[in-house]
Amino acid sequence: MIPVRILGTASLQPGPPVTTEALCARVGRDAQEVLRKTGILTRHFAPPGMTTAAVAAQALRGALEAAGLEARALRRILCVTSMGGDVTTPATANRVAAALGLAGSCDAMDLSNACMGFLSAFDVGARSVATGLGPVGIVSVELLSRTTTPEDPRPYLVLGDAAAAAILGAARPGEGVLGVALGNDGTLPPDVVLENPHATGKPERMRFLTPNKAMTRVALEALMRAARSVLDEARVALGDVEWVLTHQPNGRMLDAVMDALGLHAERGVRVVDTVGSVGSASLPTALDRLLRTRPVKAGDRILMVGVGAGVAHGAVLYRVGG
Amino acid sequence: MIPVRILGTASLQPGPPVTTEALCARVGRDAQEVLRKTGILTRHFAPPGMTTAAVAAQALRGALEAAGLEARALRRILCVTSMGGDVTTPATANRVAAALGLAGSCDAMDLSNACMGFLSAFDVGARSVATGLGPVGIVSVELLSRTTTPEDPRPYLVLGDAAAAAILGAARPGEGVLGVALGNDGTLPPDVVLENPHATGKPERMRFLTPNKAMTRVALEALMRAARSVLDEARVALGDVEWVLTHQPNGRMLDAVMDALGLHAERGVRVVDTVGSVGSASLPTALDRLLRTRPVKAGDRILMVGVGAGVAHGAVLYRVGG
Repeated sequence: MIPVRILGTASLQPGPPVTTEALCARVGRDAQEVLRKTGILTRHFAPPGMTTAAVAAQALRGALEAAGLEARALRRILCVTSMGGDVTTPATANRVAAALGLAGSCDAMDLSNACMGFLSAFDVGARSVATGLGPVGIVSVELLSRTTTPEDPRPYLVLGDAAAAAILGAARPGEGVLGVALGNDGTLPPDVVLENPHATGKPERMRFLTPNKAMTRVALEALMRAARSVLDEARVALGDVEWVLTHQPNGRMLDAVMDALGLHAERGVRVVDTVGSVGSASLPTALDRLLRTRPVKAGDRILMVGVGAGVAHGAVLYRVGG
Repeated sequence: MIPVRILGTASLQPGPPVTTEALCARVGRDAQEVLRKTGILTRHFAPPGMTTAAVAAQALRGALEAAGLEARALRRILCVTSMGGDVTTPATANRVAAALGLAGSCDAMDLSNACMGFLSAFDVGARSVATGLGPVGIVSVELLSRTTTPEDPRPYLVLGDAAAAAILGAARPGEGVLGVALGNDGTLPPDVVLENPHATGKPERMRFLTPNKAMTRVALEALMRAARSVLDEARVALGDVEWVLTHQPNGRMLDAVMDALGLHAERGVRVVDTVGSVGSASLPTALDRLLRTRPVKAGDRILMVGVGAGVAHGAVLYRVGG
């Protein structure tokens, strides 16, 4: 076990909700069909000029408040993003720290692993805390609307903007990560790609390269393998896990995952219907909703599991402390 | 102490050397003046079409060979870059793993903290190993020539392309990180910036915003503070540290740092004269040269210290094992 405590969480969506009907009207698509295929009613688009650092700092402030901590207590900030944040160099995390009023009292770095970025950061944060460096603030911030265009409706109709944060700190007895399974397989065909304009020399947009069905099949296989691996490591049966949070790229995928795991909906938290597909912010948004709205109690196990572009897979099994 | 062993290192520069004379002829600058100001004789530019993943994989292969390990032994790959790698999503680290022939046997993520990215990754890698996840492969890969243009000579004349890798694994007794001091201060005026084209909607280049003298003053202050902090933590006097490696953005800065620390040149390793300013790859290139060419022995202390854009500062004090 990696001893670590989730001290507080928060999540937010910048800007007012944008309905699927409104977007479909813009691109001439049938809203009912898109709703049926994606399960997404609304998503949020950050207003022009709003920075990822500002959105990330707001999420971190919320998580610090939930933790009862001031920002200067932080020893490390991990800023997770799939779209590169505000700047490529230096790390956007510097601006997040500055927006929190910090001036060198902690370190900061950007970290990316597509939709599994939050789980990667959770693992890094947990290992930091377990070796004496904490509290650690993790924030996933995705302004994915900046990477889409109505001319390519498939990403445009599902991606949204969001941020979610968690503060990790020293564990109480019996509390922490019971098992972790993270892996990346770059030999699989690319599914979702956002090329780097610094490398290609031209503007780039998020592109979906694989039909939904093929993505779902590959994703389900990787996800089930990760879940089994982490449950085996912790010697816990899935039936004994109180809460299961899965990455939610769309509603259908969420349903397919919960079906494949044989789980009733009430053991998870559906967020994709109102926030859309929000990359690495999906899992921590669900985690925040879980901890704020459900009767989570000491000893409960939370399984966070998902797959993302790469192909990246990940599962973390966490036991809640007292 | 964080117990960890440097199992092997490697470094490389892609493409043939390009002389300062040749570049100065292109932009109509006096080569002798540039040489005097920068201390850079040559740098390397990766040929068009060469990917960051290919260069990173080559560096990791060299480090694995030095470690006597096969790639499939790795449990984690940290790909450090200041220019975003080959793709923004997914992490370029997926392609690095795939180029090493790996298909899901380890996890992988991209990490960035400007020129301090290698020290950030070294800390994350060490804490991963110390909590049971290893070996960890760290590679800093910078194709900075892709971010410059002759129209802006200041970055163009100093930045170069390079990669350097280190494999971290389980420690032998007495071996590991004696102290670490990492910090980021985003409230300081921005010095070096590469905007994110996904955020700005237009192509971007690396820009130097601060005069050299002002950069040197801020950098020296931050660097000295980091060095003092880490030496205090480890209760080691600078005079007792056998080897000191500093980040080398240019030759003058290196001289100023060694002067400020009161160190003779032979306790460090000069790399900037032949490789140029190579971002996060500077420190691990110096580390690789140190371990390959100097009489480093069991018990020796290596101080790695520097500053980068952000402003990020960092110092790691490492004790070599038997």
